[in-house]
Amino acid sequence: MHKSKLAGLVIDCQASHVRDAANFWHGVLGGELDIDEDGKYAAISDQGDIQVLVQAVDHPARVHLDIASDDKDAEVTRLEGLGAKKVVTIKSWIVMEAPTGHRFCVVNPQTDNFDQTANRWE
Amino acid sequence: MHKSKLAGLVIDCQASHVRDAANFWHGVLGGELDIDEDGKYAAISDQGDIQVLVQAVDHPARVHLDIASDDKDAEVTRLEGLGAKKVVTIKSWIVMEAPTGHRFCVVNPQTDNFDQTANRWE
Repeated sequence: MHKSKLAGLVIDCQASHVRDAANFWHGVLGGELDIDEDGKYAAISDQGDIQVLVQAVDHPARVHLDIASDDKDAEVTRLEGLGAKKVVTIKSWIVMEAPTGHRFCVVNPQTDNFDQTANRWE
Repeated sequence: MHKSKLAGLVIDCQASHVRDAANFWHGVLGGELDIDEDGKYAAISDQGDIQVLVQAVDHPARVHLDIASDDKDAEVTRLEGLGAKKVVTIKSWIVMEAPTGHRFCVVNPQTDNFDQTANRWE
């Protein structure tokens, strides 16, 4: 048995530094903005149960979903069974591509309520 | 004074009928799946505070955000002030484009807790 859940969404923005993009989306969404020191990520808090991140990327702008799991290998295998394909592993997260064409990531649990709120897969 | 908040995310899938795409994302995310009669939309429940929809579209696959507001005209004006541009109005929602290139929608309040949880803009 392992667990997974929708952990958050990442607003990927084509930029060398995340500042301008993060300021725009913070203006849209409210909450508190926290930009990391190297300018690649920003977190926008207070968006309900899910994490909202803004990321500076090289590829064209998109929004991608993060799926948190307590067993990422088991979750990747489960998702492959649904038709998704593994693209690349970056640091602690695994980038996958859905049969619908969307990229998404499998990541570690992000919040204290993960165990209580995640889906259980037997 | 008006209010707005992140209401949900829409997984836009290039398809004539939403069924296959909705089944895949339902498999990923769990919850309950509700496909509308004309096959254009599906709702995936139990994803925390935000609505998750799958939509059959003609354009390439993407994920877009829905921003709910109790005064959509005031919200569009506020967002234009942040640098967003109005693209088109479809039914009751207004499609906008962010300076980061992302399309998103301004929609009516979606949930009973809107008044308590939305940002207040003076």
